[in-house]
Amino acid sequence: MLKLYDYLPSGNGYKVRLLLTQLGISFQLIERDILKGETRTPEFLAKFPNGRIPAVELDDGKLLFESNAIISYFSENTNYSSKDAFERALILQWLFFEQYSHEPYIASVRYLVHVGPEVPDPRRAMLDTMIRRGYDALEVMEKHLAPREWFVGNNYSIADIALYAYTHVADEGGFDLRKYPAIRGWLARVKAQPRHIAITERPNSAAKA
Amino acid sequence: MLKLYDYLPSGNGYKVRLLLTQLGISFQLIERDILKGETRTPEFLAKFPNGRIPAVELDDGKLLFESNAIISYFSENTNYSSKDAFERALILQWLFFEQYSHEPYIASVRYLVHVGPEVPDPRRAMLDTMIRRGYDALEVMEKHLAPREWFVGNNYSIADIALYAYTHVADEGGFDLRKYPAIRGWLARVKAQPRHIAITERPNSAAKA
Repeated sequence: MLKLYDYLPSGNGYKVRLLLTQLGISFQLIERDILKGETRTPEFLAKFPNGRIPAVELDDGKLLFESNAIISYFSENTNYSSKDAFERALILQWLFFEQYSHEPYIASVRYLVHVGPEVPDPRRAMLDTMIRRGYDALEVMEKHLAPREWFVGNNYSIADIALYAYTHVADEGGFDLRKYPAIRGWLARVKAQPRHIAITERPNSAAKA
Repeated sequence: MLKLYDYLPSGNGYKVRLLLTQLGISFQLIERDILKGETRTPEFLAKFPNGRIPAVELDDGKLLFESNAIISYFSENTNYSSKDAFERALILQWLFFEQYSHEPYIASVRYLVHVGPEVPDPRRAMLDTMIRRGYDALEVMEKHLAPREWFVGNNYSIADIALYAYTHVADEGGFDLRKYPAIRGWLARVKAQPRHIAITERPNSAAKA
């Protein structure tokens, strides 16, 4: 069975759990506590050299890390991607936007103030900048979504999954979404999709290891 | 003709210039100076809401940003990608690694000390951390490349292009590559590929606008 190395509060891990659940793909959840350094052990690093979750091990032993690479792989030729080459490029555009302009601010602020508030971290010195850049990302999303239902084309895709992961818990980092009606409407549409699960909900299909 | 909005010293832009040149795709280079705010004008933001180069405008007016999404799009069904679905996932894994664990440190340190040393930037307060994380990324690359010629499979691909872009100029940010022989061997192999161009080399095919 597919093995998913993960940490339940992680939005990056949640992307993978949500997509696999919506695709009906069973997996074994192998939890690794990032706050206890469990992704930096020699055993973990031997498999996944960048020391981060989520990461997957396929039935044949193949290894893959980076949340957005994992969801791209499993979405290929499904309704969560697109049959159109340019739409697939737009999906990737938003996945890279998420990892470069959104996650380092919105997810990292949530991590610093909510997930691991007691963990020393040099980024605390630039928290104000991170908050401002988080709002910059929300502005880009709000303008894009104002005339649209979904990030790319006319369907829910992994672009929505990737951006939902940390946006829907942005309030845990203190981000105020009240002035972003398009984002709030989109969050509700994502949540209403079939087989949706919550971020720390242990998927039914997942056997605890 | 394809329009590429770009800034010549940008490694992110260089990825696109290098791939298009190696593919033999002609393009019009439209230069925008990021140090003068030329990617934050209302005109630019109307096309590219995240205000960053590189970005492309196709002949039919379609717009795409994010360097790694652009090179993914143009590499599809070429020798710079892979026919194998899992190898394509590994290529994406390294593209996301590049944008999340490499570029924010190796490219940003180069930017802070070399490209725009006079520009005020809150990240200067955590330069030491950024340098350490840059070396972390180089360690991951060195271990991966030690038994390999290329990042994925047996061929030069956009994974190599994406990671080459800022690694080969890491010394401009003060990074010392002497203790990374596998990286240095790989840099030489990338540079020796047919139709290689240097980072600030104006491509032959590009008409200045």
